[in-house]
Amino acid sequence: MKILFTGFMPFGGETSNPSYDAVRLLPDVLAGAEVLRLELPTAFDKSARILLETLSRTKPDVVICVGQAGGRSCVTPEYVAINYRDARIPDNEGFRPRDERICPEGPDACFSTLPVRLIAERCRAAGIPAAVSCTAGTYVCNALMYTLLHTARQLYPAMTAGFIHVPYSAAQAAAKDVPPPSMSLPMIVEALRLAGETAIEAAK
Amino acid sequence: MKILFTGFMPFGGETSNPSYDAVRLLPDVLAGAEVLRLELPTAFDKSARILLETLSRTKPDVVICVGQAGGRSCVTPEYVAINYRDARIPDNEGFRPRDERICPEGPDACFSTLPVRLIAERCRAAGIPAAVSCTAGTYVCNALMYTLLHTARQLYPAMTAGFIHVPYSAAQAAAKDVPPPSMSLPMIVEALRLAGETAIEAAK
Amino acid sequence: MKILFTGFMPFGGETSNPSYDAVRLLPDVLAGAEVLRLELPTAFDKSARILLETLSRTKPDVVICVGQAGGRSCVTPEYVAINYRDARIPDNEGFRPRDERICPEGPDACFSTLPVRLIAERCRAAGIPAAVSCTAGTYVCNALMYTLLHTARQLYPAMTAGFIHVPYSAAQAAAKDVPPPSMSLPMIVEALRLAGETAIEAAK
Amino acid sequence: MKILFTGFMPFGGETSNPSYDAVRLLPDVLAGAEVLRLELPTAFDKSARILLETLSRTKPDVVICVGQAGGRSCVTPEYVAINYRDARIPDNEGFRPRDERICPEGPDACFSTLPVRLIAERCRAAGIPAAVSCTAGTYVCNALMYTLLHTARQLYPAMTAGFIHVPYSAAQAAAKDVPPPSMSLPMIVEALRLAGETAIEAAK
Repeated sequence: MKILFTGFMPFGGETSNPSYDAVRLLPDVLAGAEVLRLELPTAFDKSARILLETLSRTKPDVVICVGQAGGRSCVTPEYVAINYRDARIPDNEGFRPRDERICPEGPDACFSTLPVRLIAERCRAAGIPAAVSCTAGTYVCNALMYTLLHTARQLYPAMTAGFIHVPYSAAQAAAKDVPPPSMSLPMIVEALRLAGETAIEAAK
Repeated sequence: MKILFTGFMPFGGETSNPSYDAVRLLPDVLAGAEVLRLELPTAFDKSARILLETLSRTKPDVVICVGQAGGRSCVTPEYVAINYRDARIPDNEGFRPRDERICPEGPDACFSTLPVRLIAERCRAAGIPAAVSCTAGTYVCNALMYTLLHTARQLYPAMTAGFIHVPYSAAQAAAKDVPPPSMSLPMIVEALRLAGETAIEAAK
Repeated sequence: MKILFTGFMPFGGETSNPSYDAVRLLPDVLAGAEVLRLELPTAFDKSARILLETLSRTKPDVVICVGQAGGRSCVTPEYVAINYRDARIPDNEGFRPRDERICPEGPDACFSTLPVRLIAERCRAAGIPAAVSCTAGTYVCNALMYTLLHTARQLYPAMTAGFIHVPYSAAQAAAKDVPPPSMSLPMIVEALRLAGETAIEAAK
Repeated sequence: MKILFTGFMPFGGETSNPSYDAVRLLPDVLAGAEVLRLELPTAFDKSARILLETLSRTKPDVVICVGQAGGRSCVTPEYVAINYRDARIPDNEGFRPRDERICPEGPDACFSTLPVRLIAERCRAAGIPAAVSCTAGTYVCNALMYTLLHTARQLYPAMTAGFIHVPYSAAQAAAKDVPPPSMSLPMIVEALRLAGETAIEAAK
C-alpha cells in the first residue's frame, strides 16, 4: 500500500509552513504502507494540476492533504469540501477567484472518505487536541480538497482521501507580538502519523 | 542561591493542573541555584498562609508562582498584581470573596520584580509562544501574587518575585469536546526553566 | 408573493430565542410580499415535520429559516447545509443523533438558493455586521436547512430558500457574567428585513 | 455639578472613533449635572496635557474618559490604571514609548474612583452587555487614565474619575471583511449615559 501526504509551501508572509514541515518529518513507512510526500504551491490551479498528475502517476491507496488554518486551536480533519471558491487575497500566482464554483458540473460538496471521527478520537486519546471541522474555508485548501475528492469519486473509487488542517506551529506563534493558538511541530507530526495509520487500517 | 517554584493543585473539575505538573518536572538545579518546589491549594487564605510560611522558612532568592489561565494561547509572565479580589466561583475551601481589597492597608497594586519582558523574549527566541500580561485576574492567582509581592516589599526587599500564567496543557485540551488553546507540557516546563534561569541571572 | 420566516423556541437554558423574537417583529408586508411566520421547536424531527407541512400548506415563494449561533459576532447567511448530523447535546425532545446522515439517499450537501452574498453586502452597507458562513454546524439548524433545501429541490424547484444565523441578542449577552459577542434585537430585525427584501427581489 | 466626558479622535486607519461619537450624542444635562465634552488626540503627551489643562480650567466633579478597545464584546469600565506604558505602534504624534513608567515617582497603579461594578450592573440591568475590566492595556488609554487618577489624587481629592472602554461600533465592524464583536452606537451612548448618572449619584 501507498499513502500520499501533501503539504503547502510557505504563504502570506510566513517563512515556513508547518503543513509540509510536518509531512517531511513523517516516517517513510506507516502501518506497512509506503509514505509518499508532495509539496504544493499555495495556488488554486497549480496545486490541483500537480496533485492530479501525482495521483495518476503514483496511484496511492490513501491521500491526506494537509494545510494550515491559522487561528485554530487544534488539529481538524475536514468533513466536507464545497464546490465554491472565494479568495480574500490573491494566491501565490496572483489569481483571486471570487464567488464561483470550482467545478461547474460537480456536486455542491463531497464528504471526506477518511475516517475523520476516528482520527480525531485517536489523536485525543493520545493527548493531542483534535476535532472534526465542517468547513475548510473557501480558499486553496478547500479547492484542493474538493478537486481531490471529486476526482477520486470519478477515477479512483477505491481511494481513501481527505484533508486535515493544522494550527500555527509554536515557532510561528512565538514570532508574533500577540501569539495566536498553536501546537508544537512534533505534536503536529504525531497527529499526522496517527491519521495516516488510522486511514491505512480503514483502507485495508 | 535558591529559587522557589509554586504550582496549584487541580481545580474546577480538572483532574490535573499543569502548573504544578510542570514545576515537578523542572531540574533540581537551575543556573547554579537550588530548585525548591511547593504545591499550593487553590484557596485564597490557605495558599497565602503556606506560601508565607515557606518563604520565612526557606528564604529563597527568587520566587516564581505558577498558575493556569485556561483559554490563553501562550505563557504569560504577569506584570502586575492588584489589591482586589472578586471570585466568580468559590475556592477549594468554599470561600468566595466578592468585590473587596486583599489587604486593606496595602497599595492598589504591586509590579512583578521578575524580568518579565526578558522572560517573554527568551521564551519566544526559543520558539515558545509567550507575552507579558497586564492582568492576573481577580481570583486566587492574582491574590497569591499580590500577597507575595506586598510581603516581599516589606520583609524581603532583595527577593525577586512574580507570577507566570500557563495555558491549558495539550492533554487537558484534548479531553474537551471543543479543544481550547493549549501548550504541550514539555514546552511549558521549558518555558518555566527559561524563566527561572533568566530570573536567577537577573538576581545575581 | 409570500415569504415565510421561521425562528426557534428558547433552548439550552436560554429564556428567549432572538431568532423568533426577531421574526415576530418583522413587518407584515415586505417588498410587496406577504410575510408568514412560524415558530419551530429545537428538535430534529419535529422542526422538519412542521416546516414541511407548512411549506405544503402555504406554498411560499421565499423561505428564510433563522437560528441562533451563540458566540458569532455578526449575522451570517449560511452558504451550505450538509447531509450530516451529530449532536453534542440532546434536542428538546431528548433525541441525540450521532455521526449519521440526515437523509441516506440525499446528496452530501445543498447550497442555499438565497442570494447570500448580496444579503451580507446589503446588511454591511446598512451598517450591520454580516458575513457569509460556510458551516451551519451539525445540530438542528443545519438539519433543518438541509431538509428545507433538499425538499425544495425535489418538490418546489422555483422556491428560493436558505438559513440565516444570528448572534446572541444584547439582552442575552447582558445576562451572562462574561458577555459574549452580541447584537441589539432591532439590528437583528433590520438584518432579516433586508435579507427578506433582497431575497424577494431576487425571486421576482 | 459638572461631569466631563472625553473621547478620542479616529486612530489607526479607522475613519471614526465611537468613543467621541458617543460622547457627542450624550444629553447636555445628566442627573442634574452639566455635561462637558472634550475630544482628545490619540497621543500620549498631548492627550494628557489637554486633559489636565481642562481639569484645571473647568473643575468637573466627575470625569469619565472613554476609549475604544477593538475586539472586546462589551462595555468595560476599567478597574485600574498602571504606571507603565509600552506601545506596539507609534501614537498620532509618532511617539512610541517602550517598557517605561508613565510617572517615575508615581505609585504602581491607581484604582478608578468611579463605581465601576455598579455601572456594569446598571448597564446589564438595562440589557447592555458590560463587565468590569482589570486591564486598560499599555497604550494611550491606560496612560491617560493613570495620569487622570494620579493627578486627581494629588490635586482634586473630591473628584470621581475613571475610564470606560467601548467595543467597535456596529458601523466599524460592518466595514471589515471578518466583522469583530461590536455594539450599536445608540447602545454605547446609553451605556455612557447610565455610567454618568451612576457616577453623579455616587458623587453627590
